Amino acid sequence: MKIAYDGTNFYGFQRQPRLRTIQGTLEEILESLSGSHLSVQGAGRTDAGVHARGQVVAFPLRDWPIPAERTAPALNGTLPAEMAVLAAAEAPAGFHPRYDALSKTYHYTVFRRAVRCPLWRLYALHQPADLNLRLMREAAADLKGEHDFSAFQNTGRPVKSAVRVLQEVLIEEDDLFLHFWFTANGFLYQMVRVIVGTLLEIGLERLEPAVVPKALETGKRELLGPTAPPHGLCLERVVYPEGIFVE
Amino acid sequence: MKIAYDGTNFYGFQRQPRLRTIQGTLEEILESLSGSHLSVQGAGRTDAGVHARGQVVAFPLRDWPIPAERTAPALNGTLPAEMAVLAAAEAPAGFHPRYDALSKTYHYTVFRRAVRCPLWRLYALHQPADLNLRLMREAAADLKGEHDFSAFQNTGRPVKSAVRVLQEVLIEEDDLFLHFWFTANGFLYQMVRVIVGTLLEIGLERLEPAVVPKALETGKRELLGPTAPPHGLCLERVVYPEGIFVE
Repeated sequence: MKIAYDGTNFYGFQRQPRLRTIQGTLEEILESLSGSHLSVQGAGRTDAGVHARGQVVAFPLRDWPIPAERTAPALNGTLPAEMAVLAAAEAPAGFHPRYDALSKTYHYTVFRRAVRCPLWRLYALHQPADLNLRLMREAAADLKGEHDFSAFQNTGRPVKSAVRVLQEVLIEEDDLFLHFWFTANGFLYQMVRVIVGTLLEIGLERLEPAVVPKALETGKRELLGPTAPPHGLCLERVVYPEGIFVE
Repeated sequence: MKIAYDGTNFYGFQRQPRLRTIQGTLEEILESLSGSHLSVQGAGRTDAGVHARGQVVAFPLRDWPIPAERTAPALNGTLPAEMAVLAAAEAPAGFHPRYDALSKTYHYTVFRRAVRCPLWRLYALHQPADLNLRLMREAAADLKGEHDFSAFQNTGRPVKSAVRVLQEVLIEEDDLFLHFWFTANGFLYQMVRVIVGTLLEIGLERLEPAVVPKALETGKRELLGPTAPPHGLCLERVVYPEGIFVE
């Protein structure tokens, strides 16, 4: 299923005892409709406060009583308003939304006016200071491609290999916002937020763009900027080999 | 002061005993900073759930200790995140933000995708059905100009004259949204929401565009559609004679 959610009032994607999470909420509703515990897998394990407009989740269909074409409306009638099922389709046996993904795209939004906007407070980071876009784009270009991104993660979710392919890094600006877009074959723990926090420090001219190649080379997290807050981040899109997931 | 707010968790603009309102919150903070009760007037008395990006408010400066240029930062440091002061300026004695306004502009947002969007649930009305834009624009054109808008209000805030000049009615569409823009020299109680509720019924082909001239003529509220919900509505802009309020 392709799902969207406002992550503000959730303790992230992953099920945790006694806490409200996206996975936990989905599993509860699937159980209430099917009478069975159906374990939900997600393409991205978004943190508390992170949003999604195109998260993909999957669960086993063996005990699921509702046909695919009626699954989205049935769940939308039961889910809280902060969550919605945008599309549902039957996947081949063994499909895993994270391991089978070719790429994921995250979007980070920065609100740039001098005064904060109450209507964007939950969906964009407020950064009123001038930003040097040229330096930020220079650093972003160095991030593109296949690298060991060990420096660009926080501790808490160890991985065997930190090599990822960052296929696209895009910085767009308009009158009100700065939009960051990141597409990769996979992301490390809080990788997007470490990158955004670093690019903003570079834009503020508190760090030099040269820290990026240096951190890629040495793996040293401490060379980089702070982790940007979660509320500006949104999981926008997950892409699968043709036929595995069709909307 | 030009202010913005997320109206979701307020009982509207106007002060009410023991309820959280925009006016009440402002007056509390002005009192905490000045030691005096300073009565706040607003350009538009927005309902519970209605937002603002350009509301204008005024209060007497006699007991106010902070210079105009430091008033916005001082208040923004104290206001809840759901409110912000965008600009502050000294107005001539006797200035009243409602009576002196030449025009106000309201914006109503409708989210048009098949499935609701959790990230827009507090800021746009979800209407997934097809809408006949041609019929809606035909009806909107009949609303423009000077009319007695008696039919286009709800009971609860009686006025001597219901004659208003609707200077602009604009319906814009893009991929995700329908945007309604209304500019007038004044609005009656819930007038924008009655107009939007009626235009949507016309777009759904449940009412004919001819109800608009008929309601303008007869003053009959019952000819029109339901009152659209508050959360899609935002007070965007208030215009004053040059020099009265300059950002």
